[in-house]
Amino acid sequence: MMQEQTGKIIKKPTITLVGAGPGDAELITLKAIKALNTADVVLYDALVNEELLEHASENAVKVYVGKRSGDHSYSQETVNKLMVDYAINYGHVVRLKGGDPFVFGRGFEELEYAASYHIPAQVIPGISSAIAVPELLQIPVTHRGLSESFWVVTGTTADGKISNDLYEAARSKATVVVLMGIHKLAEIVEIFKNAGKHTLPAAAIQSGSTINEKVAVGMVETIVEHVKENNITSPALLIFGEVVTLHSRFKSTSEIHDAIGTK
Amino acid sequence: MMQEQTGKIIKKPTITLVGAGPGDAELITLKAIKALNTADVVLYDALVNEELLEHASENAVKVYVGKRSGDHSYSQETVNKLMVDYAINYGHVVRLKGGDPFVFGRGFEELEYAASYHIPAQVIPGISSAIAVPELLQIPVTHRGLSESFWVVTGTTADGKISNDLYEAARSKATVVVLMGIHKLAEIVEIFKNAGKHTLPAAAIQSGSTINEKVAVGMVETIVEHVKENNITSPALLIFGEVVTLHSRFKSTSEIHDAIGTK
Repeated sequence: MMQEQTGKIIKKPTITLVGAGPGDAELITLKAIKALNTADVVLYDALVNEELLEHASENAVKVYVGKRSGDHSYSQETVNKLMVDYAINYGHVVRLKGGDPFVFGRGFEELEYAASYHIPAQVIPGISSAIAVPELLQIPVTHRGLSESFWVVTGTTADGKISNDLYEAARSKATVVVLMGIHKLAEIVEIFKNAGKHTLPAAAIQSGSTINEKVAVGMVETIVEHVKENNITSPALLIFGEVVTLHSRFKSTSEIHDAIGTK
Repeated sequence: MMQEQTGKIIKKPTITLVGAGPGDAELITLKAIKALNTADVVLYDALVNEELLEHASENAVKVYVGKRSGDHSYSQETVNKLMVDYAINYGHVVRLKGGDPFVFGRGFEELEYAASYHIPAQVIPGISSAIAVPELLQIPVTHRGLSESFWVVTGTTADGKISNDLYEAARSKATVVVLMGIHKLAEIVEIFKNAGKHTLPAAAIQSGSTINEKVAVGMVETIVEHVKENNITSPALLIFGEVVTLHSRFKSTSEIHDAIGTK
């Protein structure tokens, strides 16, 4: 710290990118809590549980910089600038991001921006929804005999499209998790159908780990319908793979046919 | 709780699978710490930081059930039986597992075993090494313009082999993370070479997030050498993809050639 002639204390600017986890306020790390404890400013996203702000001092400045679908009032550039500006003027900025900062979180871009101003920046990993949200429903991304790998793909790339990687993922034997893809579910389902995966088990989970959680479980060819029935919308993730059969609510096509007498 | 005629208090058996994170004792969640606080027994693995045991009561029974490479004194079956036996006799068993319980952790098998004895069991996600270990070195698994997906594969399947999924992963544009593969590095490198990926950036990280961390950064065709130079051994993860170029120590082939004057 330096003391200016005016008597104002200027703290050394630092930035900590912090993963806030999937939503449940207890699914944040001890290291993240300690970072929040020493924050002078917290810049937080739309998907961050606001209860987490209580780990910061009462005097800390808390700034909502959420970008919700269709609301681009805070561009990434604006967030970057705010982050650096607050660090220079207030000291320790915690940039609190939903899930993990490096899983489609543009976290590395924020680190680069901080570095361009020579502001020390570090990152504290968070619990990624990609693994934890199915996990909390007791769907494992890997399981002996069912899946030896998992592939996490974005449903919304920089140009707003589904990642081309999803075409390969649909053909693979990996468990496939799609983040930010619920708005393109019909299109995503076509990709799996074109890969011959009509009966591959699938689930859609909205607001996983929170009290607002909603779940739809089915197969590639039925998941659109189940998502409609359950009014599932963003934020939600999709999971495709045999591991979905482990969920208590999964029923295979033959069981469904048995149940409704159409076998 | 029930009080027996003998005066002994019998607690209701419950099991909590807890992800201990990658190694750093502060990379555990608040929810995990709360579970440990109420544990009567903690069964913990080889890769778990033993400092975490301090979150459990002094009176809690702490049992090491680690399986290190080549040491099969505790089979999965033994661990399952111990877990259930302790739950029945002591009450709340926390099964503390390295990383995340559902990322190649056989966590679901433990849940199934608990269910077969009608013992309530839940899972608390942990920070997975697959994402966090590269992240702490400021290597993001996804980054706009470099990677729209990441694929996590095991280097050691149930039959001890590299997963067949790795052959597909090597051909894909995903960032590929291989867990438990360091002992098969030469074989894994061949898979990437056969996919034409000789100059794909690659890194190997041992004991990530701990004071024993070791890092080797290079390319598919040089990583074996770098791993030898740095004496990197198990436990370690491998990461392949353009995102590795973001690491401060990455140098491209042309830079290396420039440096040693062999261009």
